[in-house]
Amino acid sequence: MASVDTAWESLKGRLTELEALGGVVQLLEWDQQTMMPKGGGSQRGAQLSTLTGIMHDRLADPQVGSWLAALCDETDPIKAASVRNVQRDHERATRVPTRLVAEIASASNSGFSAWLAAREANDFSLFQSSVERLVELRKEEIACHGPADHPYDHLLDQYDPGSTTAQLQPMFARLKEELAAFIASVSGKEGPATVTGRWDIAGQEALSKSVIDALGFRLDDGRLDPAEHPFTVGMGTGDVRLTTHLYEDDLLGGLTGTIHEAGHGMYEQGLPSVHTGTGVATAAGMGLHESQSRFWENVVGRSLPFFQWLAPMIRDQWPDTNISAEQWFGHANRVERSLIRVQADEATYNLHIVIRFELELKLLTGEIQVADLPDAWNDAYANLLGIRPSTPNEGVLQDVHWSNGLFGYFPSYTIGNLYAASFRYQMEEDVPDLWNRIAQGDFTPALQWLREKVHVHGHIQDAPEIFLAAVGDRDPVADLMAHLRSRQGALYGE
Amino acid sequence: MASVDTAWESLKGRLTELEALGGVVQLLEWDQQTMMPKGGGSQRGAQLSTLTGIMHDRLADPQVGSWLAALCDETDPIKAASVRNVQRDHERATRVPTRLVAEIASASNSGFSAWLAAREANDFSLFQSSVERLVELRKEEIACHGPADHPYDHLLDQYDPGSTTAQLQPMFARLKEELAAFIASVSGKEGPATVTGRWDIAGQEALSKSVIDALGFRLDDGRLDPAEHPFTVGMGTGDVRLTTHLYEDDLLGGLTGTIHEAGHGMYEQGLPSVHTGTGVATAAGMGLHESQSRFWENVVGRSLPFFQWLAPMIRDQWPDTNISAEQWFGHANRVERSLIRVQADEATYNLHIVIRFELELKLLTGEIQVADLPDAWNDAYANLLGIRPSTPNEGVLQDVHWSNGLFGYFPSYTIGNLYAASFRYQMEEDVPDLWNRIAQGDFTPALQWLREKVHVHGHIQDAPEIFLAAVGDRDPVADLMAHLRSRQGALYGE
Repeated sequence: MASVDTAWESLKGRLTELEALGGVVQLLEWDQQTMMPKGGGSQRGAQLSTLTGIMHDRLADPQVGSWLAALCDETDPIKAASVRNVQRDHERATRVPTRLVAEIASASNSGFSAWLAAREANDFSLFQSSVERLVELRKEEIACHGPADHPYDHLLDQYDPGSTTAQLQPMFARLKEELAAFIASVSGKEGPATVTGRWDIAGQEALSKSVIDALGFRLDDGRLDPAEHPFTVGMGTGDVRLTTHLYEDDLLGGLTGTIHEAGHGMYEQGLPSVHTGTGVATAAGMGLHESQSRFWENVVGRSLPFFQWLAPMIRDQWPDTNISAEQWFGHANRVERSLIRVQADEATYNLHIVIRFELELKLLTGEIQVADLPDAWNDAYANLLGIRPSTPNEGVLQDVHWSNGLFGYFPSYTIGNLYAASFRYQMEEDVPDLWNRIAQGDFTPALQWLREKVHVHGHIQDAPEIFLAAVGDRDPVADLMAHLRSRQGALYGE
Repeated sequence: MASVDTAWESLKGRLTELEALGGVVQLLEWDQQTMMPKGGGSQRGAQLSTLTGIMHDRLADPQVGSWLAALCDETDPIKAASVRNVQRDHERATRVPTRLVAEIASASNSGFSAWLAAREANDFSLFQSSVERLVELRKEEIACHGPADHPYDHLLDQYDPGSTTAQLQPMFARLKEELAAFIASVSGKEGPATVTGRWDIAGQEALSKSVIDALGFRLDDGRLDPAEHPFTVGMGTGDVRLTTHLYEDDLLGGLTGTIHEAGHGMYEQGLPSVHTGTGVATAAGMGLHESQSRFWENVVGRSLPFFQWLAPMIRDQWPDTNISAEQWFGHANRVERSLIRVQADEATYNLHIVIRFELELKLLTGEIQVADLPDAWNDAYANLLGIRPSTPNEGVLQDVHWSNGLFGYFPSYTIGNLYAASFRYQMEEDVPDLWNRIAQGDFTPALQWLREKVHVHGHIQDAPEIFLAAVGDRDPVADLMAHLRSRQGALYGE
């Protein structure tokens, strides 16, 4: 067996390579959605599959297993965290046979085509057998990992290491009850008015850059480009690229999306680059990543103080516009029961997620069958939101995730909202003049707090531990409900 | 030993990977010079060195050697060409020890810094020891490859496989004599006038795209972006990216540069993608590549028929401009003896290359020492061009190539000009209405000819064989001189 020092140096060498290749994969995906000409698709596919194949081989390499074994008693916190993170990835790469990985990739590929066809025909039956196959394959994959408290834990672990079904289930159940009641009471009342208008795209681009620059996104260490479906990639703290989709008739729709991505981007820019090459200078999971985007998009970006700063900037850009901070604030916090998750407002959004989470659990445990999904979906919407989809496209066919075999991913969105709410209240305690500073366009205290409590910890601890260290014994469900009551509740006279 | 069929399949698998990774390296370099934010530099370095390291290992892999050995009697022309190309690369990757590769990389790196410092101080002595070291290392590298007719052949082979010193030396010597006499006689006479004006960059971008679209560059399979130092990358025929540098006060400077890059790009788009994964769907060397850029830039893009088509387009874009085709033609073909290669006109350009070629030969054979370079350079300029550099920056320090250890690369530029001239005269024979079609903006016959005679052959043969098959026993020196006499000669009353 290698000596501990040799093993650590060898592991670091391998991780440095894997981080570099991971950055390249990110760049290829960014390029594909922003710059690549139409004709580049097939070569891009070959490039990505070659790179991910090389990364898989280098991670599954038995040498990695022996380095990890030599380092199993490591007590230095960085090295120990590195070993824990790599151990997870190495096990995932070695325990699941190549045959099964290929089958899942192939089923995801044909699942996506089936989903497109089913959406085209607005007919779930065209998609059903693909989902059945993917559920079976995921169960097979789960079985490779050996026993767990709940089979769903293995799925959660891929996106949100440290989260467990046992911990999420009661939290999501409480959130469901409280949210459904809140939405029901708010929905009967008259709320704030919608703001309408037209804002030229060039002006929106200029405004977007001013806003994210003010928030603290470093434009010298990143970019902002248009993309059909916005996303963010990070290739080290010096190269973080945001994308956004602007709409001429919806200034706030584009801007809140940009701020959301800048939240992801500021997390990436704040990761502990000093630990590059150890596998801990990375985000601690999708839930915590989403907490950063949602914090900036919702907690900051839909607050009245934020609009007190923003409204004059909008007037400067479009002198004909005369919309007050209060009007923008009302518009940004309207509540509407609707069927499509990606168009949902901040309050109803989490009910969409809870519905998917509960259906995924039942699918995995066999409580429901794939054939039952459309009805189970519609019933859940009728029960919780009080509206029932009239076609599959408005219901079970709306999201791409399951077509790619992505089960266990949806909870990240609500974990993010829960974390963000508790960050809000802890930050208000720690930074008493937080909102005054924001009203003046000074976002430094908020970013500084997130840097210290979240970003700088990278993936040294798992997200639940980082959250605990940041906010102590706060109750995120209570915080999220308090946050919504302070905004939508107040605006709707609750 | 592997069976022939197994060996071929294994080799193809490896080449498919190497082509994909090669495309990724091209994309990273393109991104670095067009899109990458300032902060991305250090991560980009790590990404590139990781990828090139992986590519080197996969090429030097002894398995590749055994596949090649199993295929040594291959008679199928594609497979035989593939084996020949891969054999060259495999030998280069295995014969030169890793230690020497690292020393050259390191010496190139510090050589570049020394060159920058020497340019800053306008003082060759700060650069001298770097060049000495690089010449020694290149000699060591050449020795690894075993005997050759001339040591310089090993350098040529890296950029222009199939070219030999024995073949280039007399050709370049003849060109030198004829060109020097031509330049001397033209330089005493009054030539056409310079066109001056201002043309907005947005308008130039629109014009550039119209022009390259008309030439036949497929914009759906490529892009055009601004870059400080223009270049072209190809990642398969479906993703070819040109860059250009436009100048508000020099419309033709930017446009001819764009056309030059489009020439490279159309070659890349015309490679035989049917042979992807065999190592022959690639350019047959830098000289032939340059023949394509120079053909479009010079033979087509500085011709009177081209300006007869272009002049009205320029007037459409800038209605205040009223410059005739004849004025543009004159402006584009002015001859001026000058000291800086990259600013040289079409006629004098090749003298700059011949000077570098002869100095490189003398350095390698020990006929001159590095310390003699500045004087030898200045004497050559005085003898051939009739002007003498007054400072090192105007002379021996002007090009970046030697600082990176790039010896043997300069000849490609003149090989390209020679090939392009013969392509012109052969094309005129094969396509009698060539110039009438060009005057009408119909570039299809020219592109079609190049597609059939050059592009579609990829690297199945080496460039000299492709050239021979395309033009027969034409004399490229005579053709280049005839071409220059038909343009600059006529304009200067020669």
